[in-house]
Amino acid sequence: DLHPHENYFSRETLDRQSGKRTDKVWLEAKQSDSESVYLLFSNLSPMVRTQQEDGSEAQGDMKLCRFRYEEVKDLLLKPSTVTIFLGIEKTVNPSSSFSSEKAESLSEPPVWFAINTDEDAAALLERCREKNCSFPRSPNRDLLKLSEEEAGVVAQARSVLAWHSRYSFCPTCGGATKMEEGGYKRSCLNSECRSLQGVHNTCYPRVDPVVIMLVIHPDGNQCLLGRKKVFPVGMFSCLAGFVEPGETLEEAVRRETEEESGVKVGPVQYVSCQPWPMPSNLMIGCLAVAVSTDIKVDENEIEEARWFPRQQVIDSLFRGDRSVFVIPPRQTIAHQLVRHWICMNSNL
Amino acid sequence: DLHPHENYFSRETLDRQSGKRTDKVWLEAKQSDSESVYLLFSNLSPMVRTQQEDGSEAQGDMKLCRFRYEEVKDLLLKPSTVTIFLGIEKTVNPSSSFSSEKAESLSEPPVWFAINTDEDAAALLERCREKNCSFPRSPNRDLLKLSEEEAGVVAQARSVLAWHSRYSFCPTCGGATKMEEGGYKRSCLNSECRSLQGVHNTCYPRVDPVVIMLVIHPDGNQCLLGRKKVFPVGMFSCLAGFVEPGETLEEAVRRETEEESGVKVGPVQYVSCQPWPMPSNLMIGCLAVAVSTDIKVDENEIEEARWFPRQQVIDSLFRGDRSVFVIPPRQTIAHQLVRHWICMNSNL
Ligand SMILES: Nc1ncnc2c1ncn2[C@@H]1O[C@H](COP(=O)(O)O)[C@@H](O)[C@H]1O
Ligand SMILES: Nc1ncnc2c1ncn2[C@@H]1O[C@H](COP(=O)(O)O)[C@@H](O)[C@H]1O
Ligand SMILES: [Mg+2]
Ligand SMILES: [Mg+2]
Ligand SMILES: [Mg+2]
Ligand SMILES: [Mg+2]
Ligand SMILES: [Mg+2]
Ligand SMILES: [Mg+2]
Ligand SMILES: [Zn+2]
Ligand SMILES: [Zn+2]
Repeated sequence: DLHPHENYFSRETLDRQSGKRTDKVWLEAKQSDSESVYLLFSNLSPMVRTQQEDGSEAQGDMKLCRFRYEEVKDLLLKPSTVTIFLGIEKTVNPSSSFSSEKAESLSEPPVWFAINTDEDAAALLERCREKNCSFPRSPNRDLLKLSEEEAGVVAQARSVLAWHSRYSFCPTCGGATKMEEGGYKRSCLNSECRSLQGVHNTCYPRVDPVVIMLVIHPDGNQCLLGRKKVFPVGMFSCLAGFVEPGETLEEAVRRETEEESGVKVGPVQYVSCQPWPMPSNLMIGCLAVAVSTDIKVDENEIEEARWFPRQQVIDSLFRGDRSVFVIPPRQTIAHQLVRHWICMNSNL
Repeated sequence: DLHPHENYFSRETLDRQSGKRTDKVWLEAKQSDSESVYLLFSNLSPMVRTQQEDGSEAQGDMKLCRFRYEEVKDLLLKPSTVTIFLGIEKTVNPSSSFSSEKAESLSEPPVWFAINTDEDAAALLERCREKNCSFPRSPNRDLLKLSEEEAGVVAQARSVLAWHSRYSFCPTCGGATKMEEGGYKRSCLNSECRSLQGVHNTCYPRVDPVVIMLVIHPDGNQCLLGRKKVFPVGMFSCLAGFVEPGETLEEAVRRETEEESGVKVGPVQYVSCQPWPMPSNLMIGCLAVAVSTDIKVDENEIEEARWFPRQQVIDSLFRGDRSVFVIPPRQTIAHQLVRHWICMNSNL
């Protein structure tokens, strides 16, 4: 279960061991090690099995399918397969359901890899001996049903695999690139390319910082929530937006809030953050205090924004009252920011 | 001057007016408006003038050269020129030396643009009627001599221009792209390209989150600083590293500290952040509490790391004592994190 103040997708279950990424001999040995664990992604969706056939929505009802080298080695040889090194299982409490290691084992903990392939999905599913396996179609919703441990692994794997799927050409010269360092680098194959000289970021996976903010009314007793047209009926959430180049987090909170709602923000306070691997955002959660109250939404982005009194928020959050509005699920940092505000003193 | 808790490169002097980026008619009118301000970059370095010929290092001694439309309109027509929209001058205190607007003016505040060109630098310098103009060679050092206001503008302009200079090809298909939305988007010209469909980030400027941390000894009275081989003699600074995909800020602080110094970190607390436009980092400054003390540096990245007692830090920071170690200049967030620790209670 979620620990207090822990956001979904945040648990670091594997030790990334970044020093091993340049150790080709070690990496190759671990790839063919029978103890290694492989996750299989098709079109950036991981193969999972659901506990119940009825497709219940509860968290933990979905588990990652784990493969051994022997079961995937033919895929590893295909040129279109991308294989990345995730890390080494942390030595955990042997009672944890996560660990694939036997408690009595004296060997090194297993090494995890993830594969993305464009092979036929139905044929891939046949590789799995378990029942009820699938590649979920809607990552924004379906990937919220994993355990905390597996969600953390998926956050890392999906972000890096998504980068490979979108960045296989060199943005500096348009030429082909090759994967290096266990999947954490792509280098241009054109030896004349500027991307091989000087300070640059084109070779490294991208992480997009996004601010997400719960804006508090100057009276301390209402918060500002908005809805996009694509949201489920009745759902309102925190405003959010991409941090722009040359901007601080605090300034991004002020700019995005004013752009989307017309509300001006004064003090901003960081609360917590959440990796969101769709494809590779880092959601940086803040509380912010409004210094104006008139709402004027940017209709391109937001359908409606409103001040919600504390009591309505409590009703939605703790009593499941859907009559006024619906709050996003607890796996979202928006939910956690609202809960944080409700549970703290009303004055920042 | 720096306000308390304000980091260099952080002041937001222009109103970005992102809604105007899609308004081609407005943008074109403002580009040829005689009140508009142009900054001129060559090889990502802005044209500046220095007050003194001896090249003093003091902050504020360097000023951006500002151009009018008539002075740069030939450059705007060249295909290799990149022109980006920065924003509109905020209506500020008329006594501010920043504002290019006359206090009595009733017209709209001036709109700012930045140009990057590969024309001959010597010829570009001749365009400027002022003396002592140059394109500084070493951005990491030279761009620290601007006023707070101009530093904020350069942070934005240089990050976005650097993105255009490195990302002119589509990373998804390798094809050519075109600039859009005043410089905040590049779209693939290949109408079949996957980058034009679905959720993606290839079209948008990149911002790389970096954690930078002052790690405090468990005794509360020493802090961990390290030096890279390239640092000036005697300088020690905070450890820092890129946030990886699928990772929280707090976990990045723990991972990078352990990777670089061998020291294990427990609690992490966000302090402030700083845009660092070399090329487009967002430095996220944290205090962190060590839970182990043995140092074992990663020799690929760090030459030496040490625990520095509070008194030695005070001597270096406030007394300019360079005998034990030299702290980075006050324009760096590393300096501000150290100062923050010294000025607060020793216990987090
Ligand atoms: N890195 C990025 N990834 C996706 N969309 C981006 C990115 N940066 C800017 N955008 C734009 O920002 C819009 C969403 O607005 P916001 O999240 O409020 O900043 C998207 O529709 C894009 O037009
Ligand atoms: N976005 C990025 N830009 C530049 N270097 C990166 C990036 N991401 C990872 N790196 C690598 O990180 C190294 C610096 O290590 P660190 O700053 O401690 O993470 C660089 O030498 C690169 O190999
Ligand atoms: Mg938004
Ligand atoms: Mg935005
Ligand atoms: Mg927005
Ligand atoms: Mg580092
Ligand atoms: Mg690193
Ligand atoms: Mg490092
Ligand atoms: Zn290249
Ligand atoms: Zn393309």
